[in-house]
Amino acid sequence: MILPEIPYYAVIFTSRKNAEADGYDEMADRMEKLGSSFPGFLGIQSARSEEGLGITVSYWKTLQDISKWKADTEHRQAQSQGRSDWYSGYEVRIAKIERQYSFKEI
Amino acid sequence: MILPEIPYYAVIFTSRKNAEADGYDEMADRMEKLGSSFPGFLGIQSARSEEGLGITVSYWKTLQDISKWKADTEHRQAQSQGRSDWYSGYEVRIAKIERQYSFKEI
Repeated sequence: MILPEIPYYAVIFTSRKNAEADGYDEMADRMEKLGSSFPGFLGIQSARSEEGLGITVSYWKTLQDISKWKADTEHRQAQSQGRSDWYSGYEVRIAKIERQYSFKEI
Repeated sequence: MILPEIPYYAVIFTSRKNAEADGYDEMADRMEKLGSSFPGFLGIQSARSEEGLGITVSYWKTLQDISKWKADTEHRQAQSQGRSDWYSGYEVRIAKIERQYSFKEI
């Protein structure tokens, strides 16, 4: 992605999925689509290893933009279902991007 | 991982690997081991999707700790080989963790 102008914010979401996670992929796609429609959304990058550890980083203009997305009704339902059905555990970190550089394009 | 006390810093390294990347896994293991021996290292989380996008997040106490690791001679050689041989592109972001929470353990 083209690097946004600093400073901006990242939500680093690290998770481990349950072996049984019916409906997860559909919900993940839906949440990515919904989240990217919110004001202040700058981009998202996601990877999941075969062993089940996933890292999703979404980028936002402001902390307030992140708070609004977190509080969205449909997103809150997905968070709840994530805790009950999909994830054995997760970590969320909100971070301010202070420096950045890139090599070619990814 | 156990969440460190905030504030602390993350290096978000997002990369796309070349199809041919001989020696990459060995070097990645070596760099993880070497980096984790540096002062201020708090932890590392890594995932790579089957499509080739990788995300590695390492956590550090201070910006100075990150600078020292970046400047390490062996690490600099690996960075150089990464640009010439292993990565079609990458992005590096240095971010200050300001908030965090977790659900169970990952």
